[in-house]
Amino acid sequence: MSDAIVKQIEEQGNEVRRLKGDKSSTEDAKNEAIQKLLALKLAYKEATGQDYAAPNARQSKPKKEEKPKEKKQQQEKKPDGKKQTLLGVGTKKDENYSEWYSEVITKAEMIEYYDVSGCYVLRPWSFAVWEAIQAWFDSGIKKLGVKNCYFPMFVSNAALEREKTHIADFAPEVAWVTRAGQSEMAEPIAIRPTSETVMYPSYKKWVQSHRDLPIKLNQWCNVVRWEFKHPTPFLRTREFLWQEGHTAFANPSDAEKEVFQILDLYAGVYNDLLAIPVVKGRKSEKEKFAGGDFTTTVEAYVACNGRGIQGATSHHLGQNFSKMFDISYEDPAKEGERAFAWQNSWGLSTRTIGAMVMIHGDDKGLVLPPRVAAVQVIVVPVGFKTENKESLFDAVDKVTKDLVAGGIKAEHDLRENYNAGWKFNHWELKGVPIRFEVGPNDLAKNQVTAVIRHNGEKRQMSLDGLSEAVKTLLDEIHDAMYQKVLAQRDSHLKTTTCMEEFKKLLDDKCIILSPFCGLPECEEEIKKASTREDGEGAQMGAKTLCIPLEQPKQELPSKCIFPSCSHAAKAFALFGRSY
Amino acid sequence: MSDAIVKQIEEQGNEVRRLKGDKSSTEDAKNEAIQKLLALKLAYKEATGQDYAAPNARQSKPKKEEKPKEKKQQQEKKPDGKKQTLLGVGTKKDENYSEWYSEVITKAEMIEYYDVSGCYVLRPWSFAVWEAIQAWFDSGIKKLGVKNCYFPMFVSNAALEREKTHIADFAPEVAWVTRAGQSEMAEPIAIRPTSETVMYPSYKKWVQSHRDLPIKLNQWCNVVRWEFKHPTPFLRTREFLWQEGHTAFANPSDAEKEVFQILDLYAGVYNDLLAIPVVKGRKSEKEKFAGGDFTTTVEAYVACNGRGIQGATSHHLGQNFSKMFDISYEDPAKEGERAFAWQNSWGLSTRTIGAMVMIHGDDKGLVLPPRVAAVQVIVVPVGFKTENKESLFDAVDKVTKDLVAGGIKAEHDLRENYNAGWKFNHWELKGVPIRFEVGPNDLAKNQVTAVIRHNGEKRQMSLDGLSEAVKTLLDEIHDAMYQKVLAQRDSHLKTTTCMEEFKKLLDDKCIILSPFCGLPECEEEIKKASTREDGEGAQMGAKTLCIPLEQPKQELPSKCIFPSCSHAAKAFALFGRSY
Repeated sequence: MSDAIVKQIEEQGNEVRRLKGDKSSTEDAKNEAIQKLLALKLAYKEATGQDYAAPNARQSKPKKEEKPKEKKQQQEKKPDGKKQTLLGVGTKKDENYSEWYSEVITKAEMIEYYDVSGCYVLRPWSFAVWEAIQAWFDSGIKKLGVKNCYFPMFVSNAALEREKTHIADFAPEVAWVTRAGQSEMAEPIAIRPTSETVMYPSYKKWVQSHRDLPIKLNQWCNVVRWEFKHPTPFLRTREFLWQEGHTAFANPSDAEKEVFQILDLYAGVYNDLLAIPVVKGRKSEKEKFAGGDFTTTVEAYVACNGRGIQGATSHHLGQNFSKMFDISYEDPAKEGERAFAWQNSWGLSTRTIGAMVMIHGDDKGLVLPPRVAAVQVIVVPVGFKTENKESLFDAVDKVTKDLVAGGIKAEHDLRENYNAGWKFNHWELKGVPIRFEVGPNDLAKNQVTAVIRHNGEKRQMSLDGLSEAVKTLLDEIHDAMYQKVLAQRDSHLKTTTCMEEFKKLLDDKCIILSPFCGLPECEEEIKKASTREDGEGAQMGAKTLCIPLEQPKQELPSKCIFPSCSHAAKAFALFGRSY
Repeated sequence: MSDAIVKQIEEQGNEVRRLKGDKSSTEDAKNEAIQKLLALKLAYKEATGQDYAAPNARQSKPKKEEKPKEKKQQQEKKPDGKKQTLLGVGTKKDENYSEWYSEVITKAEMIEYYDVSGCYVLRPWSFAVWEAIQAWFDSGIKKLGVKNCYFPMFVSNAALEREKTHIADFAPEVAWVTRAGQSEMAEPIAIRPTSETVMYPSYKKWVQSHRDLPIKLNQWCNVVRWEFKHPTPFLRTREFLWQEGHTAFANPSDAEKEVFQILDLYAGVYNDLLAIPVVKGRKSEKEKFAGGDFTTTVEAYVACNGRGIQGATSHHLGQNFSKMFDISYEDPAKEGERAFAWQNSWGLSTRTIGAMVMIHGDDKGLVLPPRVAAVQVIVVPVGFKTENKESLFDAVDKVTKDLVAGGIKAEHDLRENYNAGWKFNHWELKGVPIRFEVGPNDLAKNQVTAVIRHNGEKRQMSLDGLSEAVKTLLDEIHDAMYQKVLAQRDSHLKTTTCMEEFKKLLDDKCIILSPFCGLPECEEEIKKASTREDGEGAQMGAKTLCIPLEQPKQELPSKCIFPSCSHAAKAFALFGRSY
């Protein structure tokens, strides 16, 4: 099977090269050929679980999802018995962001690779970020009256297939349990890819009257989507953690209001916790959640590769699911008629952590935004000799304990088998926002030296009122990190009405606001037109990231950006290459 | 297949009846025949997923795991349009605790039944109990330096089979994923029944030196054990939620110390949150965790059926897993030799909630211990007329808000389509610890009437300093509930050295302290000897619940309780029928 695809890919590759060399061939013909080549490569990936590699590369190229540069992580032993880890990130972010990313998440001890493809271990260093997000968001939804619950992970086939549009989207990625112990099951059972079809049969039972509404439930759980695309820790994994909220209302306006309340909370996770600016918007018809009425989203920008990344989505399902699952009651307004509930669902996943790493990380490693950092301040003793070591270590211990008592997540590093330089590198790699260097000279002046991770700035801080000063500094760091990313994003956020400029901007790693008619066919054409075959392999086309809620101030042109589109522009859409 | 078993069961039933009628037959012969009958019935269950029912009963008896008495939950409509639910529990706890349990958990809105057998929906009313337990326990382990993380749900067969003793115990219950979308997987992948084999390959990578120890990790997650025994919500389910801690130490004494620190936290969950006394002890050789060195446990007592219930377990794994998974480092004490880590694992599951329901519930429904109740005080307006309704509702709202501001989980019930009597029943069924009745007469005296759920006691409480008084009252309720269960338990906790008395006590719903040699063969014999065929079906034999850490004050007899055992007693063991 894959041999046949390989043959087709090779033939199509020749065709693309032929068209590129032929000056008489049209752009459309070239793009169509490239599109076909990409489709074949995707089919290859789906069949083999691996990226297609050209024949001369195929033998030597390692499987991409293998742990990168394992050797670099090995420890060497110095003659004095001190451990000497090959610290630091060996790849520059600008040069190869994909390899850089793998190095950072493993060396910063966020991820451990695992022997089931597409599954990864979330180590405490990354899980703490998730816990911070959970605590903040959970408290936010509880204020809206949402309650937590837990529904089973397993779905019967009958329930899963109830909503056809919905399942058409998910069916290719559903994992099936067919055996228990030594027994084959009579009916295979699916593992939830999302829980609409798990939950809504219960909602039907619970809704007898309009008084049983609203229902506002949320669960924190794992879901499984057995993707055949190239997996990436956090960003595309076969099992991931998320929260999924599922609410049902008696009238559409209450439901729609909540969609945007939740969207604001999602924006808050990015803005207020992760120090990442996001654009709030609606998904296009093509990109919305299958089976829902409309999808809202928060979209972030990843500068190193110029891609948009979907941050979290809040869907208004309308009455599509309530009609399929019969979540209804006797209409108090129209005797003898059934009224169907208006529903929402909304989800935020551990993908957030991947976005955070990609956006804030630098050539030294991870950079943690202060409000989600497991350790906000690492205290390191410096410049001591044997005779004053004990008193200095005591002082370091006291500084750390005072910070902890003041509500700061502080730890010290008193390990004796590492020198101060090694520790600096280690905690920079792990992205701790502030390093305190505590030495005899500083102490004599009643101060410590603070080194700020994200910009390398050094400053002296007085021991008096230190906790309060650190809190202020953490907020200052948060704001500065946010502003840095915002400036980066805004310098790559362009507006155009010209398709040729659009393609150029895309290759310049921009995300682009352009007038758009909203039709899926036209979005498909724009994607094709912006797909590009470069030296290394295919470069994907642009899709809409969202229709921003806040539209550009300039007047909307009458025409959709796509030259041959005959429809009027409905709004500015934000386009980009995307995760 | 099952026809053949049915025939054997019928024949063996006849044999048991023959032996019972035959005065010359020995007790041993009778017991052996009963034991064989039970084994056949168990085989039947495993083959069919259902309990064996005698031919005359088999046709009419409903499948036990179906939702009980669905009709009772339906709502009737009164002529005035007010909803009139058939409230209250239709079955008395003493008469049929199994049916009573099903009614309580569904009517109190803790559980919704689900269309995958052995899986249940945890509704907010029960999930809030779990959240309270999570918050308390999570804070406890974090103080011990344990960090949270998340490992994949999927296990490769190779990893799963690494520890033979361990997997022998779990293999018959493992659920296997064999298909993704339309593709058969090359290798089936298991869903974790517990995560030793998931985690320890990573532990191997992380341990290079004694300095990498201890590792102290925990995760809150779902696990799957596809049991073929009769499922019961909370108590025996195919998917359940738990926490699992996995720690590794450089020396055994640190590991062993932690086993008991965790056991104390587990005892705290029962004593301090759920108001349930537990016996701390070690599991016998027969009952310990497969692959570990020793297992400690907290055991509670369920009065309505006289059974012991395992509350949570903390295992010392010794070096068994570290040797299988090579979690080792160069021994600093013996050059050139490898030292293996000493490991623990420990878990507490949503079974806790089932124990709480069984132990505290009464004929009116659920009784929630105050510290885990989603609602601690429900405020209900009473004795009002149309003209003073608004002012009274305002007063109820103010009382409730003041309680919430004072840190009490308080809600009011201002629904107008239910009368006060219905509300009293409703909130009693749901087990809310305190009901406030607020009427014009009370308000005129600056007081409210408090009704205490667990004993029905009424008392007047002044509106001045109400929150503080309620806090005191909640503690008082907790203590009284604990003492009530303790007295019940202690009156059924007997000591004997005589096997005949042992059997009689067991039938009197006692748990029994008896001298025990500790050998698995002898435990098996005691189980056989105490198995009883009663009118309705088999009554299981006794097993050891634990070897209590705190032994009875009386001197240990030299002989094991089992008459034909030739070994010396090692300790008093706590025996009982068990979940």
